[in-house]
Amino acid sequence: MRYSKLFGKTKNDAPHDENSINAKLLLRGGFIDKVAAGIYNMLPLGIRVLDKVKQIIREEMNAVDGQEILMPTLHPIELWTTTGRDKTMDEILYRTHAGDKEFVLGPSHEETVTPLAQRYTKSYKDMPFAIYQLQTKFRNEPRAKSGLLRGREFGMKDMYSFHTSNESLDEYYDRVKDAYLRVYERCGLTAYPMAASGGAFTQNLSHEFGIKTPAGEDTMVVCKKCNTALNAELLEGKDKSKCAKCGTELIEEKAIEAGNIFKLGTKYSEAFDMKFVDEDGKEKYVIMGCYGIGTTRLMGTIVEAFNDEKGIIWPKSVTPYHVYMISIGANEDVIKESEKLYKELADAGIDVLYDDRSESPGKKFNDADLIGIPLRIVISEKTLKEESVELKERTDKEARLILIKDAKQEIINFYK
Amino acid sequence: MRYSKLFGKTKNDAPHDENSINAKLLLRGGFIDKVAAGIYNMLPLGIRVLDKVKQIIREEMNAVDGQEILMPTLHPIELWTTTGRDKTMDEILYRTHAGDKEFVLGPSHEETVTPLAQRYTKSYKDMPFAIYQLQTKFRNEPRAKSGLLRGREFGMKDMYSFHTSNESLDEYYDRVKDAYLRVYERCGLTAYPMAASGGAFTQNLSHEFGIKTPAGEDTMVVCKKCNTALNAELLEGKDKSKCAKCGTELIEEKAIEAGNIFKLGTKYSEAFDMKFVDEDGKEKYVIMGCYGIGTTRLMGTIVEAFNDEKGIIWPKSVTPYHVYMISIGANEDVIKESEKLYKELADAGIDVLYDDRSESPGKKFNDADLIGIPLRIVISEKTLKEESVELKERTDKEARLILIKDAKQEIINFYK
Repeated sequence: MRYSKLFGKTKNDAPHDENSINAKLLLRGGFIDKVAAGIYNMLPLGIRVLDKVKQIIREEMNAVDGQEILMPTLHPIELWTTTGRDKTMDEILYRTHAGDKEFVLGPSHEETVTPLAQRYTKSYKDMPFAIYQLQTKFRNEPRAKSGLLRGREFGMKDMYSFHTSNESLDEYYDRVKDAYLRVYERCGLTAYPMAASGGAFTQNLSHEFGIKTPAGEDTMVVCKKCNTALNAELLEGKDKSKCAKCGTELIEEKAIEAGNIFKLGTKYSEAFDMKFVDEDGKEKYVIMGCYGIGTTRLMGTIVEAFNDEKGIIWPKSVTPYHVYMISIGANEDVIKESEKLYKELADAGIDVLYDDRSESPGKKFNDADLIGIPLRIVISEKTLKEESVELKERTDKEARLILIKDAKQEIINFYK
Repeated sequence: MRYSKLFGKTKNDAPHDENSINAKLLLRGGFIDKVAAGIYNMLPLGIRVLDKVKQIIREEMNAVDGQEILMPTLHPIELWTTTGRDKTMDEILYRTHAGDKEFVLGPSHEETVTPLAQRYTKSYKDMPFAIYQLQTKFRNEPRAKSGLLRGREFGMKDMYSFHTSNESLDEYYDRVKDAYLRVYERCGLTAYPMAASGGAFTQNLSHEFGIKTPAGEDTMVVCKKCNTALNAELLEGKDKSKCAKCGTELIEEKAIEAGNIFKLGTKYSEAFDMKFVDEDGKEKYVIMGCYGIGTTRLMGTIVEAFNDEKGIIWPKSVTPYHVYMISIGANEDVIKESEKLYKELADAGIDVLYDDRSESPGKKFNDADLIGIPLRIVISEKTLKEESVELKERTDKEARLILIKDAKQEIINFYK
């Protein structure tokens, strides 16, 4: 892609009411654009990152036998009065009407997935199974001031599992917990499962996932040996120095919560009277789990975890492009060689963001750092004298000269 | 995928209030599930078809330099009062409130895309460009009774282009018209552009695309030589026998409209005061085009175009799986060979829906026909005696025996 043609260029400033790191950098970098508090347009650069995040999640959910579906945003109010969450979640619900019909804009999908699963689940033979969607959620958050971390309209993967026994749920819950840890690891993040209270979703066991971020809004207390953590708030008045389980010294880390999993038990199957006929011929309530991870929130979390004073530093796995290529000056040979390399890299399946603008080198370097693609290539009259280009990793201080003919292989090796 | 594990099995009946062919077949086949009038869940089989339809559209929009973005569903009401469409489209608008803020659930996105583009467009050098999204639309349709053809919540690709001159718009408009024809062709459909009045969207020139379907709700009058058509309604009182342009005899065809493109001109740029500085230094209004195609509607149209009394007949390009494989009976060798072939085909990248249930052959054959995958393979004791399987195209009357060892290559050749 030629940067001159890309829709959504860098900006010097973010809107004044955006204070979070992720919002500032994503807005300035041309990844997102603000429509209203907590409501954003996703621009071409942003879509490329979000699609990679979504694909990682999709692959890991498929790997634990999740089946992808898509449920609607408009939920008939009757589904929500059935569970009583029209009252308990009233504050954050968006509602709409069509004639005498009232709808809730889905902030979560237990109220639609349970009746859906009920229509296809009669016998113990039909379980266990898990269905998930990558969809948009709506929550009227009073404090939508953290960029992609807390939106009013935001992307989410939500999966729901259905079981005949608590043992089956427990086993699947642990599989999904591991799948979540793989998602974070593939996004370059350090994550710990934290046992937590379930809030409005359930009174049963649940976990949040704490992502290590220098400017996180929460504090977690980590046991590296048990590979687990607790929200520091839950430890008020308790010993925060040693792990209660193994005695290892605990470490405090700033964190952002980016994912929740819940053992719902029979809360929703009882509300909707969702029963199955078990092996013993008796009717029993289906046992459920649910597993949520905000896709846009995860994108924001990645930016909170990886940035410096110059801009974003994308992990390899979710970078919008593989290389940011800068040509310097109007010299004909420089332009010719830049075009040639651009084509060679593209033909090799390398995604290049080619800064072909007639801007100053300084402006181009600053934009490259702000946008945060892991590799930068510079072609100039000086480098061409040595049949070379400058290659610099986003996190390196200095660039190094490499031969033009080696550029393709260097990039391929970097992303291997 | 093992059919025994697939979420969303076939059903004998569709809900009584669903009269359209696409709704009946998609509901019975386990592609969609009904939540409310015009609101559906997309099940795993349906998602696979819809994703292929969306990917075809995405590729063709990228091929005409469209850049993918994602705009929100929640539109601040002020954007809609700016254009006056809060009144002219009032009947179909879903509205919601958050405190003293009012939002419209986007039925179309001119009101968000114009201010967005305005923030990134200052000079003639910034144009032309086109941005599109694959997103969900909300329209409170009074007659949501045609399955996926007219939903209240439905998938849509909407693209918007921005130009400095009418010539530039005209040129781009023709490119997109051709891209649309490629989309339909790749979906196996026969489509004709039809000049049409623009309805609520514009008073300027626009086209609908008429898709030939035996049970279509509209009638179009086709000139095969000009490769164009007119809605028969527009010809009331006029000559419907010969093409006004070339004199060729016209043919009447039943059709479904599945796509609209519009030359918006300056309607929205004037409303939002979106100007650019032209080469001559003067400020002028940006000239816009918009291009919409319902993704779920297109999926419904494909079913309307391709079905018989037994079920759906998916075109190769959008089939949920490549092969429906049936094993008959509980014979150990049959099961062993079925499992072996299933693995061999999957390893070759062939998507197999493997009906491994202990249902009767008749039930399995009926489900195969209803689901409509283009190829069916049957393994039984009888076929194994000849080291063979039965291969049948969905549209063939009779199956033919082929050697098991040739099955993989036959399937690959079919989809070439």
